[in-house]
Amino acid sequence: MAFKVTPWEVSGDVDYDKLIKQFGTERIDDALLRRIQKHSGRLHHFLRRRLFFSHRDMNWLIDQHEKGREWALYTGRGPSGHTHLGHLIPWMFTKWLSDTFNVPLYFQLTDDEKFLFKETLSLEEANGFAHENALDMIALGFSPKRLKILIDTEHAGLMYPEAIRVAKKITYSTTKAVFGFTNDTNIGQIFYTSMQAVPAMIPSILAGKKVPVLIPHAIDQDPHFRVARDVLPKIGYEKPASIHCRFLPALYEGGKMSASVSHTAIYTTDTAKQVRDKVNKYAFSGGRATVEEHRKKGGDPDIDVSFQYLTYFEEDDKRLQSIRDDYESGKMLSGELKAILIEKLNRFLVKHQEKREKARTRLDKYLLKA
Amino acid sequence: MAFKVTPWEVSGDVDYDKLIKQFGTERIDDALLRRIQKHSGRLHHFLRRRLFFSHRDMNWLIDQHEKGREWALYTGRGPSGHTHLGHLIPWMFTKWLSDTFNVPLYFQLTDDEKFLFKETLSLEEANGFAHENALDMIALGFSPKRLKILIDTEHAGLMYPEAIRVAKKITYSTTKAVFGFTNDTNIGQIFYTSMQAVPAMIPSILAGKKVPVLIPHAIDQDPHFRVARDVLPKIGYEKPASIHCRFLPALYEGGKMSASVSHTAIYTTDTAKQVRDKVNKYAFSGGRATVEEHRKKGGDPDIDVSFQYLTYFEEDDKRLQSIRDDYESGKMLSGELKAILIEKLNRFLVKHQEKREKARTRLDKYLLKA
Repeated sequence: MAFKVTPWEVSGDVDYDKLIKQFGTERIDDALLRRIQKHSGRLHHFLRRRLFFSHRDMNWLIDQHEKGREWALYTGRGPSGHTHLGHLIPWMFTKWLSDTFNVPLYFQLTDDEKFLFKETLSLEEANGFAHENALDMIALGFSPKRLKILIDTEHAGLMYPEAIRVAKKITYSTTKAVFGFTNDTNIGQIFYTSMQAVPAMIPSILAGKKVPVLIPHAIDQDPHFRVARDVLPKIGYEKPASIHCRFLPALYEGGKMSASVSHTAIYTTDTAKQVRDKVNKYAFSGGRATVEEHRKKGGDPDIDVSFQYLTYFEEDDKRLQSIRDDYESGKMLSGELKAILIEKLNRFLVKHQEKREKARTRLDKYLLKA
Repeated sequence: MAFKVTPWEVSGDVDYDKLIKQFGTERIDDALLRRIQKHSGRLHHFLRRRLFFSHRDMNWLIDQHEKGREWALYTGRGPSGHTHLGHLIPWMFTKWLSDTFNVPLYFQLTDDEKFLFKETLSLEEANGFAHENALDMIALGFSPKRLKILIDTEHAGLMYPEAIRVAKKITYSTTKAVFGFTNDTNIGQIFYTSMQAVPAMIPSILAGKKVPVLIPHAIDQDPHFRVARDVLPKIGYEKPASIHCRFLPALYEGGKMSASVSHTAIYTTDTAKQVRDKVNKYAFSGGRATVEEHRKKGGDPDIDVSFQYLTYFEEDDKRLQSIRDDYESGKMLSGELKAILIEKLNRFLVKHQEKREKARTRLDKYLLKA
């Protein structure tokens, strides 16, 4: 089945093996996991379950870590709407990396990008969502020492002069080939990838020496960082390493959870009732047509969206396995599986929303001062 | 003879009548001069002598002035080197407009542009020249209330968010057609015209209401403002009006005085001896091969660069006419004409350099705070 993965569109049934070949990244293999584990102790369940599946230069990054060099994390978000669970996946993993390796995170909110790429989105709306999205990252438990937030239009004084150093090294040809730009593309879109490269430079700029950077991100953003990796060594920086996750599926369609189709996504701002209703109504089921058939043949967890979500949100491997077993055997019905997910998500969200609201008055402490 | 006029290259013997047709601007006619004179009293000698020769929407601007609306001036400079006399021409005229109509000037120094368009120029060098060039504008006698300086990389916090509003409305196609961009153009160059549009928006942004803008500039910058005039009404601003001057010729070549070929240009930082040596050695002469022939046939002021310079720097029409008469009759020799120019320029420069150095410690007062 055909699929499409670009920084602006993910659709179809994504073949991650093909994507590794297509993008030219490396698969995360057992040897790499062992290297990470040597430093982290128990692996994060996203690694154990290969939800993070691909990378660039992770071995180099671990080499630098083992040499005792300071390094930094960088990830970002295009603020076109409220944060949904699909966005939280790389952020949660990034939080784990920050804690495990004791490194700061630079978090970029690309309100300029979303304004430039969404015909009907105003800059004020994109900037408003940037502030909302920032609350979700803070709510994951970062201290202001460890999390430095950059909002493109608000940090343009710092970022634009660095972005033009990147831009000088990128021809229109390159952006045409990498992003598929055409004559109709607006000139802000063409320039934009330069802004996305900047947070990979900021740790070095602030430290006054080269600081290696690791970028955890969903695989669709790889084209930007491919370009950044090509340019940065030409202007005095090291290539950033990266580590890539799969997309959290939409509730009932292929592709990734999309913030622009609200009933296919669960937002961090959804009420318990909204979560229950969305999961019950929309979560694509791997169950059988009738209870009798389900009891006899069992459900298919591998196509069941609720089960897929639990692979992200149920950290306990044994518990996850027992759910899988019960569902496959027919002992557990679709409604019961959904109930487990709903409880799991709502338990997470009620705490998250509390921390999120507390973050509202503390946002300023997290904005990078430079 | 072929000529070329783009924002980045002016060469050949420029035919200003052709340029008016090619760019689609309007000639400054007697009726317009009379309208200006109604407000200014005596016309500036650059207008009397048609050194400013072309415009867009000057009648509209005067209409707005007559309605009592506040308006503002905007001009700029690409800081690729020290200021030379060719740069001062539109600035001196702009100073006159500011004084005559009691309006502020927004002065943009495009260090980003020069860095992006000059392969070997560093951003630090371009920014250094921006600061040097600013001194020349201040030295023309502006008060900090009347002159607001914007340096693109230093005012990016204000400018970039506005530039992307412009950029969203400009396709790659447009920049290809207007600026002749190709696949090899870097993506900073492609974006840049958006930054050049911003100072036309700033007066309105700061005032919180629409403020008409007049841009005096050398005609080579017209492509940028053609694009800006197209876009600004789409995002809530009025089209800026503009008024265009001819190029001060290089000392001994066609085209405009160029900062990158140092002996064809007289810099505001040149010593009296340098000015004397450059004019004596390089200024193309309209005189005859021998004194005898010159006395008999006379010189040709219309091809004599020293005389051309005097049309800019000798304000007194009678004095200029008497020099012309004497030179054409053969009474005045080339060396004598050059001596008049040298004295004129050095008298101007000694005062200018004094004011320029005083400006060094006061630059900060002139930088736009926003």
